[in-house]
Parts: sequence; C-alpha cells; structure tokens
Amino acid sequence: MTNNKDLTIGMLGFGTVGSGVATMIRDNEKELTQRLGVKVNIGKIVVRDLDKERGTHVDSSLLCTNVHDVINDPSIDVIVEVMGGIEEARDAIEKALRARKPVITANKDLMALHGHSLLHLAHENGCDLYYEASVAGGIPIIRTLEDGLASDRISGIMGIVNGTTNYILTKMKEENWSYEEALSKAQALGFAESDPTSDVEGLDAARKMAILATLAFSMEVHLEDVAVTGMTSITTEDLQLAEQFGYSVKMLGFAERDAEGVDVSVEPVFLTSSHPLAAVRNEYNAVYIYGDAVGETMFYGPGAGSMPTATSVVSDILAACRNLLLGVGGMRSHDPMNTRLIKGEEEQHAQFFHRLLVKDEIGVFSELTSIYSRHHASLGSIIQRPGEKPEEAEVILITHSISRKNHKAIIDELTASNSVKEIISQYRVEGGTKS
Amino acid sequence: MTNNKDLTIGMLGFGTVGSGVATMIRDNEKELTQRLGVKVNIGKIVVRDLDKERGTHVDSSLLCTNVHDVINDPSIDVIVEVMGGIEEARDAIEKALRARKPVITANKDLMALHGHSLLHLAHENGCDLYYEASVAGGIPIIRTLEDGLASDRISGIMGIVNGTTNYILTKMKEENWSYEEALSKAQALGFAESDPTSDVEGLDAARKMAILATLAFSMEVHLEDVAVTGMTSITTEDLQLAEQFGYSVKMLGFAERDAEGVDVSVEPVFLTSSHPLAAVRNEYNAVYIYGDAVGETMFYGPGAGSMPTATSVVSDILAACRNLLLGVGGMRSHDPMNTRLIKGEEEQHAQFFHRLLVKDEIGVFSELTSIYSRHHASLGSIIQRPGEKPEEAEVILITHSISRKNHKAIIDELTASNSVKEIISQYRVEGGTKS
Repeated sequence: MTNNKDLTIGMLGFGTVGSGVATMIRDNEKELTQRLGVKVNIGKIVVRDLDKERGTHVDSSLLCTNVHDVINDPSIDVIVEVMGGIEEARDAIEKALRARKPVITANKDLMALHGHSLLHLAHENGCDLYYEASVAGGIPIIRTLEDGLASDRISGIMGIVNGTTNYILTKMKEENWSYEEALSKAQALGFAESDPTSDVEGLDAARKMAILATLAFSMEVHLEDVAVTGMTSITTEDLQLAEQFGYSVKMLGFAERDAEGVDVSVEPVFLTSSHPLAAVRNEYNAVYIYGDAVGETMFYGPGAGSMPTATSVVSDILAACRNLLLGVGGMRSHDPMNTRLIKGEEEQHAQFFHRLLVKDEIGVFSELTSIYSRHHASLGSIIQRPGEKPEEAEVILITHSISRKNHKAIIDELTASNSVKEIISQYRVEGGTKS
Repeated sequence: MTNNKDLTIGMLGFGTVGSGVATMIRDNEKELTQRLGVKVNIGKIVVRDLDKERGTHVDSSLLCTNVHDVINDPSIDVIVEVMGGIEEARDAIEKALRARKPVITANKDLMALHGHSLLHLAHENGCDLYYEASVAGGIPIIRTLEDGLASDRISGIMGIVNGTTNYILTKMKEENWSYEEALSKAQALGFAESDPTSDVEGLDAARKMAILATLAFSMEVHLEDVAVTGMTSITTEDLQLAEQFGYSVKMLGFAERDAEGVDVSVEPVFLTSSHPLAAVRNEYNAVYIYGDAVGETMFYGPGAGSMPTATSVVSDILAACRNLLLGVGGMRSHDPMNTRLIKGEEEQHAQFFHRLLVKDEIGVFSELTSIYSRHHASLGSIIQRPGEKPEEAEVILITHSISRKNHKAIIDELTASNSVKEIISQYRVEGGTKS
C-alpha cells in the first residue's frame, strides 16, 4: 500500500453535483483522510465559463476550460465526470480510462446508453468506473446490488426512481392539486426542469431502470428494451378512485426476470396502499428488490439534489481511491454473465385496471366481458355504476394477470366498439387486489 | 491475483443460518464462481451432534465436532461462525484471525460485546472480520454505513431492528390482538423464542443499536451505554390512542449524535404515522439514517430468517474471498476514530407523551402544569377529558423536547402527587406532532 502520497481529483463539470462534491471534500477533509489514510485534493476543475459567479467558494486557480488538460495532467489521479451530456463525456471517460485513471460519473444518460462498453474498457485497463450517483441520487443502490445482495439471485425490482413525478403525484393526492399545478410548483422548487418531458414521459426513469436491470440480472438491458408510458394523463379523479379501491397511484419502474427472460418497464400504476412503496412521498425515491433468498428489501432516500448526489459521488471516490492505493482497480462486475433474453409483448404479464364509459343498453355488459374473455383475460373485480348522463354507465374492472399483447388487443377492441364511448383511464395494477 | 485455486470454507455451526448458507452456496454455485473467478467449497462443518437428523442435505463426511480441527486445517481458507454464544465463539474467532483466516460472523451478541477488540485483531492480522448478518438479517446495513454512506457524517439512526416486537405491535394494531395473544402467535410462527425476554425487553435491539452506533459514529459504544425500555406494558388502548393523535406505536432504536456526544436508546415510541418507519409492518426491519449531506435514507427488509440472513453471510463470504485473493484483507474500519463521548441523562433530550388519571378537583390542573414547568418542560398539547368515574379526569399531554433527567424528575413528582391517581402510560414521541 503506497500510502504516503496524496491523491488528486480532476473534476469535469462544476454544476449542482460538482459543487456539492467540492463542498463535501472540503468539509469532511479530516474524516476522509482518516478513512483513506491519505489526503484527497481537488487539483483541477473544468468549467465552461471561467468568469461565471459561483455560489460555492472555489479557488479560481483550479478552474480551467479544457477537458484534455485535466485528463492528461500526470498529477491528476482520479477523474470525476459531472458535466453531463453524452458524446463529450463519453470521449472524456474513455480517454481517462485508457490513461488508467479511475472515473466516477453521475451521468445516467451516458451509463444507460454506453455503460456496457465503458465498464468493459475500465476492466481492460485495470481501473474503476463507478456510477452510484447515476441512479437514485443519495441511495447506495448500485453497491447494494453489486455487494450487499451479490450472493442472491434478484428476480425483480420495483422502483420510484424519478423524484419529480413522485412529487407531482403526492401533491395531487394530498393537496388535491391538478397535474398542471403540481408540475409548476415542482418547477418553482427546482425539482422539475423547465422542459419536464424527460421526467413526466418516463424517459429519465427508463434510463435508471435500464442501468439497474443490467446490474441486477447481469444482462445487457438497453434503453430501448424498456416499455415506457408517461404520466401526463393522470387526473386527481383517478387518484381518488384508486384510493377507494385500496390503491395509490405511483409512477413505477419494473425490472422482472424469470426463466423466459427479462421484462423492464416504466408506467403509472395502481399500487396496493399497504405496499411500502406506496408510503414514499414527495421527491423521495425508493427501490424495492425481490431476491430469491433475501425476500423483499427496500432502499429509500433522496433521488436528487446537490448534497445527496455528492454523497454517492464522494463514496465512490473513496472506494476508487482505496482500490487505486491497493492496486486492485477494475475488479467490479463489467461483462454481463447472462445472455440477452428480453421478453416480447406476448410474454410480458401484468394486471390492469380499466375505467370505461359505456352505453347503458341491454347487451353491452356481455359484449364487454366477451372482449376480455376472447383475449384470455379473466376479471378480478368488476363494478358497474351510473354515468353522469342517464344513457351512460361507468364500468370499472381489474383483470387478472394477462399478457401485454392481449391487453393491447383488448384496448383496440374496446376503442373500436360502438358500445364503449370512452376508455377514461387504464393503469397497471400491482401488489394484489385488496378485498 | 492468484485465481486458480478454489477457496474452502469452514463452518462453525449448522443451525438455521448455517444450513441457509450451505443451501445458497450449493444453489448459486455457478453465479458465485462467475463473480469470484474461483469456486467456493464448504470443506468442514462443526456440529454439536454428528447423528442429528438435518433438514438440509449435507455430505456427512464434512461434519465434525471439534472447532479447532477446522480452524487449524490448512485446507480451510475462510471461517464462517454461525454457532452463536459468546466465549467459545470469541475464542474460535480470535484463533482464526491469528491464523490469518478471514472470519464471517452472524453473532450480534458477540459483536456488541467484543466487536472492538475483534476488529482490531483482524486488522492487525491483515484479514477481514465481516458481520453483516449480525444486524437486521437480510438488510445490507453494515456495508451501507461502511461504504455507501462512507463519505457522509451520520447524525442519527432510527431503527426497527427487532422483528418479533414489530410483529407483535402490528398484530395488536391491525388485528386488535392483546400483547399476550400476539406474542404467543409469534412464538408459534417461530419469530419469538420460547423465552421472549431478550426481544420484548429490548435487549436484542440494544445489541444491534450498539453495533450500528459504533460504526456510524466511529466511536466505541458499549451495550451498557444503551438506555433500554421494554414493550411489555403496551396495551391495545395505547395503540388506539396513538392513532387518534396521528401516531403509530413502534419499538425503536435510536442512535443520535451532536457536538455534545452520543445518545443511544431502545424504547417504545409514538411515531408520527406519516414517517416511513411507521409503514414497516410485521416481522420486517428497517433502519432510517440521517446524514448531514445525504439527508434521510431508509433500508428495509427481513430482519431474520434462514435465507435472508444467509444472503448477508454469503455476500460477506464473497467480499472476504475477493480480498483474500487480492491480498488486501483487513482494510475495513476497525479502530474508532472518535473519542468516546456518551451523553448523560441531563444531555439526552426527547419529547414525551403522558396519559394520567387525576382527581377531578379544583387546582389539580394547575398543580400538574406547575410540576412540568418546574422541570423546564413546556407542553405541546394538553387535553383533559372525563375519566370513567365522575371524580376522575384523564389528562393527556405531549411535552416539547426535555432532558431525560427532567423527565424522570417529572415522573417522580407525578408518582408522589396525591392528585395523580395513576400514570396510565408514557411514551417517547418522535417525528413531530401532527396538528
């Protein structure tokens, strides 16, 4: 152990996360040095604009604008990539790994797209690529899957992995705000981007689920394998209805595996209210894991924010520095052990909740039920109640588990049917029916 | 990396956890070999009775009765201690560490009493002592504190770390069972021992909190530092009353730190119902952590059971084997960094709930409030309602945060007062008042 030399970090980017990392390294200098045996310094920080005013105090002599000056600087031992984006970040990380410098990244977009090749490259060069902060901010979920549950066979993950959508749903339920009100409040508080598309359409969550599924199943899971449904059509009425039936509406990511393959999705869900994920409020994230041996575990915490995310980055820095000092970098899992086996729609199964507005005529009910049974959907509950107009009725039903292919066929037939005036809402159902 | 030799485990003990470990190693042989690069075998198993019938299939030629034969066997690389007890286990672990064999233990009693010296010994001998399974069974909480949140300064831990008591409280609340009914059901299901003292008096939880506090604060916290109150006097009436006030009754462990020192306790608590720990049901455990940077995180899962606990043991085996192969054992935290600073009763602060039966006479209310104010307790809420008898009244009150010393003085004065007929119940209050 060559423990008499300080270690020096080069930071690529100095935004919210980057400044949090600098603050933590400064404020916890004594503890970090005790844990590691050597001191960790920040040697260089790449920024876009040298003259920008910065809230965090930083020695301006550390700032520079050229990524390659930092990577190629022989005094820099470890690279922290917190600049975001894809191509420039990828190029920088590849160059750093080829120079045998461990890399810590918080870049989920990049890891979701190019994680496999980057992890492979890291291993080839005997150095670490750590990415704890890329999923669920302050929750140490990556190392839990890699280390804490390493001995178990993970069969499923359910996660609230986007804080913005969970905040919106919490406020819609608890404050009776509309979707639009909740979204604009989230934007005012800085949880949601001015363009919220990536959050509310589920793309951000899909990236995180691709990363988690890849790791949990040791299988290449691509972003395009994730079936994504957004949350923009959720109404406060849906939330109230869910509550009446014993459910909470949550935007959930799923990663499930059985002998037939892997199924990954992000979608709005009616989740049984007694499920621990249903109690996750506001901008918090949580990841629920099913392991064959361990059973059910859940990991809860802040999904974003400067200091929570910095906690993950600095823990990764500690781990990478320790491995660097010990000369044992690049040993973490890299090449997936299992052959890619992604389920098609006929193999993906779930339960669904439908709320339909139908004509209140003789024969409609039996027409409806025949549509479901034609596509092998048996019904767990079915309720008919008067519609707002006398000639209309509302039908609410929950299917038993059916394939997504059959579900689509049912939705197509319902849409085409003259008896069905509107499919008011449809949700995946999870956690069993409460009755 | 000397990765062409299989690694061989010697198991001390073959009860619930031990047989789970053997099952996992057998069933996940392929995955474990892939993760480690070499195969892990069980070479010897120490049992008390060679002839006992065993549910788990095991090659009887592996069984032996002498601990030292296993530790001294040069073909044994790693020791797994799952026999329990204190002195024999301590002696065995010390001998193994001196022989530079990494040790994995699930023994919370031993780690709570002798963890400090054993971890120090492990470090001195350059090999690992891992003990994930000693706290909260399947939840990887030890490595979360050591690795995932390593960069953060932990200021507090709240934990449901005893499954038996949480099961009893859940059933008392949800099924309206009495304490005795819930306990005997827990015993029938195997959650509770035939002698439940250690669980219901909080001693089991105290051991786990001592281990967690030691690690989280990097300070020697001894079992006798933990202030323990049992749960045997909790009634279903208390649970209903708690619910009326927006609380759930939980048996919680606390470990708190500020500049003045550390305060560790186990006690029944009125916990705000919206707190994530309030949603932890049945025999599940959960540990809630406050970090200065990360904020609030929670780790939830099964606290006991053969396979969940085995998951933690086998993950520890993997980590220890990897370090052994890399020649980097004994690097985990061992000697506490911080000086012991345990708070006395005058520095320990909490809020309290009191339910008193008092005489319904003029002057009693003002006598009561003067007792509280004399000991610097201001009151957050106070409710007086008729007692069952006309000459009695019930007073329910919640204090603001006061020292335990003042709290004891108040209880003493209430007990001595002629106006107070009974202190019906008293609970610590946590999570703020709901109003």
